Amino acid sequence: MTAVDLIERKRDGGRLSTAEIGWLIKNYTNGSVTDYQMSAMLMAAFIRGLDQAELTAWTDAMLYSGELLDLSAIKAPKLDKHSTGGVGDKVSIPLAPMVAACGIAVPMMSGRGLGHTGGTLDKLETIPGFKTNLDPDTFSRVLSQTGLVLAGQSKTLVPADRMLYALRDATGTVPSIPLIASSIMSKKLAEDLDGLVLDVKVGGGAFMETHDQALELAAILVSIGRTYDLNVVALLTNMDTPLGREVGNANEIAESIAVLAGGGPEDLVEITLALGSEMLQLAGLAKNDAEARQLLRAAIDSGAAMQKFAEVIEAQGGDPGVLEHPGLLPKARYQEDLPAPRGGYVTVCDALNIGMAAMRLGAGRERKEDLIDPAVGITIVAKLGERVDEGQPLARISFNDEGRLAMARPLLKRAFHIATIPAARPPLILGEVRS
Amino acid sequence: MTAVDLIERKRDGGRLSTAEIGWLIKNYTNGSVTDYQMSAMLMAAFIRGLDQAELTAWTDAMLYSGELLDLSAIKAPKLDKHSTGGVGDKVSIPLAPMVAACGIAVPMMSGRGLGHTGGTLDKLETIPGFKTNLDPDTFSRVLSQTGLVLAGQSKTLVPADRMLYALRDATGTVPSIPLIASSIMSKKLAEDLDGLVLDVKVGGGAFMETHDQALELAAILVSIGRTYDLNVVALLTNMDTPLGREVGNANEIAESIAVLAGGGPEDLVEITLALGSEMLQLAGLAKNDAEARQLLRAAIDSGAAMQKFAEVIEAQGGDPGVLEHPGLLPKARYQEDLPAPRGGYVTVCDALNIGMAAMRLGAGRERKEDLIDPAVGITIVAKLGERVDEGQPLARISFNDEGRLAMARPLLKRAFHIATIPAARPPLILGEVRS
Repeated sequence: MTAVDLIERKRDGGRLSTAEIGWLIKNYTNGSVTDYQMSAMLMAAFIRGLDQAELTAWTDAMLYSGELLDLSAIKAPKLDKHSTGGVGDKVSIPLAPMVAACGIAVPMMSGRGLGHTGGTLDKLETIPGFKTNLDPDTFSRVLSQTGLVLAGQSKTLVPADRMLYALRDATGTVPSIPLIASSIMSKKLAEDLDGLVLDVKVGGGAFMETHDQALELAAILVSIGRTYDLNVVALLTNMDTPLGREVGNANEIAESIAVLAGGGPEDLVEITLALGSEMLQLAGLAKNDAEARQLLRAAIDSGAAMQKFAEVIEAQGGDPGVLEHPGLLPKARYQEDLPAPRGGYVTVCDALNIGMAAMRLGAGRERKEDLIDPAVGITIVAKLGERVDEGQPLARISFNDEGRLAMARPLLKRAFHIATIPAARPPLILGEVRS
Repeated sequence: MTAVDLIERKRDGGRLSTAEIGWLIKNYTNGSVTDYQMSAMLMAAFIRGLDQAELTAWTDAMLYSGELLDLSAIKAPKLDKHSTGGVGDKVSIPLAPMVAACGIAVPMMSGRGLGHTGGTLDKLETIPGFKTNLDPDTFSRVLSQTGLVLAGQSKTLVPADRMLYALRDATGTVPSIPLIASSIMSKKLAEDLDGLVLDVKVGGGAFMETHDQALELAAILVSIGRTYDLNVVALLTNMDTPLGREVGNANEIAESIAVLAGGGPEDLVEITLALGSEMLQLAGLAKNDAEARQLLRAAIDSGAAMQKFAEVIEAQGGDPGVLEHPGLLPKARYQEDLPAPRGGYVTVCDALNIGMAAMRLGAGRERKEDLIDPAVGITIVAKLGERVDEGQPLARISFNDEGRLAMARPLLKRAFHIATIPAARPPLILGEVRS
């Protein structure tokens, strides 16, 4: 077997066997298949696709490229939630403490922002002192102590995915449904979970721009889970417009705290409850959606969810004082409002343009190696469907650099449309796929 | 402009502009576009194709990636011949001295064998002392002194092709018609030629297995020539069966010498004359095929062609004594005959199996870095269409290693079919494309 033989077969639309895919991923991880051979293979797989058996083999080879978490010492049901990424999507941050307060163990491993989408790790690190790069012992200790842990991907888990993702990013082979699905599921399968809830974002601000694409990805993710006897529920949720009012890092933490305090924007609260409800039902802690929502509401109202967040912040080296004093979070030096050019209803509040504007401000990364500015961001004053008067703010820009502001402003302007008649608001949740 | 943008466009079937292709090749040659990015691009280009404008731009960018030969000091018409590669294809070796004896300057740059196909440089280097790795000054000096030079590709000419070819070889992106065409033509355009004759091989022993593929490649090669005002003639010639009786290295030199001495197998002589005739006509040294063939025959009969070969061998450090004493060429220690399993006519004498058998003996390279054995090879005793008695030799194997013989023997057996009725012999020349 040689790499060239396998590349040629996939190039010509042929199938690779389970043994061949195992050989390929193993030898790529150990360096005997080169980056340039793997990138040719990825492009061939991108264009020709992987069938169900190939996808399973690819996921399996990635999963076993490193160590697996062993969380058998944890008696509580272990569940995680993963989002395919969007703009203003800070759901993990209030959700994890809420479900942990209800008795779920949450070994959450998250990523960083890239392009117009934000990353949970970047947001959490705006909390003074908070560390997301945990060694395996600390990871387990925080999880058993507090019932949740909010960390980056461990270096020993699924090394093939880390290598492949970096290569895909540099070679135009990211947006392939089978490659995305195997990347997500290999990492989640390595977490030793009892259940997994997926938030597959659909729309202009998401990787999956159409309902059909998102449904295909969701079905593939759920089918991979089934192969491993892992219960998976995928919700398809709208990402044409940002979630909540805050897009950035420190400001998204502040908005997450507001949700845990019983407030927060309606759409963000609803998605958090819907995903939390699925987690509680998968864990067997609630019989139905109504019961699950009651438990989640109680965790907020009693302060138990906020208390969980305080515990995990403290356990990961952060200052839980931010929960009562959000002023401790980084703050941008300047603010500027984007005024409405006319009065009316916001009929478009476009996630992609707002995400790009936030990236240009410094809240996100154009390239993986870029540094982010934790303090900058955008506050959406007039969300989709809301009324605004001429000259009143549509959005508020928090910035530290005039040059970056100048790049962000036209993108942000382009994000808003205003009309005299309100448009129908699309549903937040567009579909679901279950094991 | 980023490499990823261009890769994504080609991946999705889009077009690249001339400026974009120029940028890509330039930055690949200088190292700022990586091997893994270029291999993803090559795979995308392989599957999606390059249109005429892209192909011209790609060829042009390769051509200007290095220096160009300046042969303006040579007053004679400068022509070269290039073959797409076959089994037993030693045509360049008798052809170059023949046309040089007729007044053409031949700045011939050839390659090495890979896989089942042989290479002119490997064959020439079996002449004791003969050097093919010439510096630019020696190249020009030998050409002006003798009217021909038989060398390897200069390192300063078309460096992008050397890099791209190595990458394609390792990434399953070799057999793409636009990539093959731009590779051939960029190298030939750098030779400062007045005309070019191409031998596009068709059949089981060639890169182009079907007539349609070969015709497509020939048409593209000629069209690129037209863009640069270079007169090009492409002949499509049969490569289902080896050319001549000898397949190897030293034995192919011996067969080439036989042609220059007025003998040699009929098919080899005919292809040599046909290609030589096109060269003389393109150079304006003959009005038509009959006149050209007369000149070529005269060059053989007068000994002028053999004399030219002696001169170039001497000028390149070799021992011209081999021309009178072929025993000076390397000789294998052992010989074994392959007997005919029954009497009858040879109806299949398959180039691919014979080429593979010769490679296994050590006459060719499985991988680029392999060393070859100059002495080993196969002599076809009963060529396609010839009669053989049971037990009489179909072929003679010259070998140095029993283990290699054992690998070669079954391939060679598989190459021959014998039937009681002779099959029709296919024509040697299957078509032509002219500017």
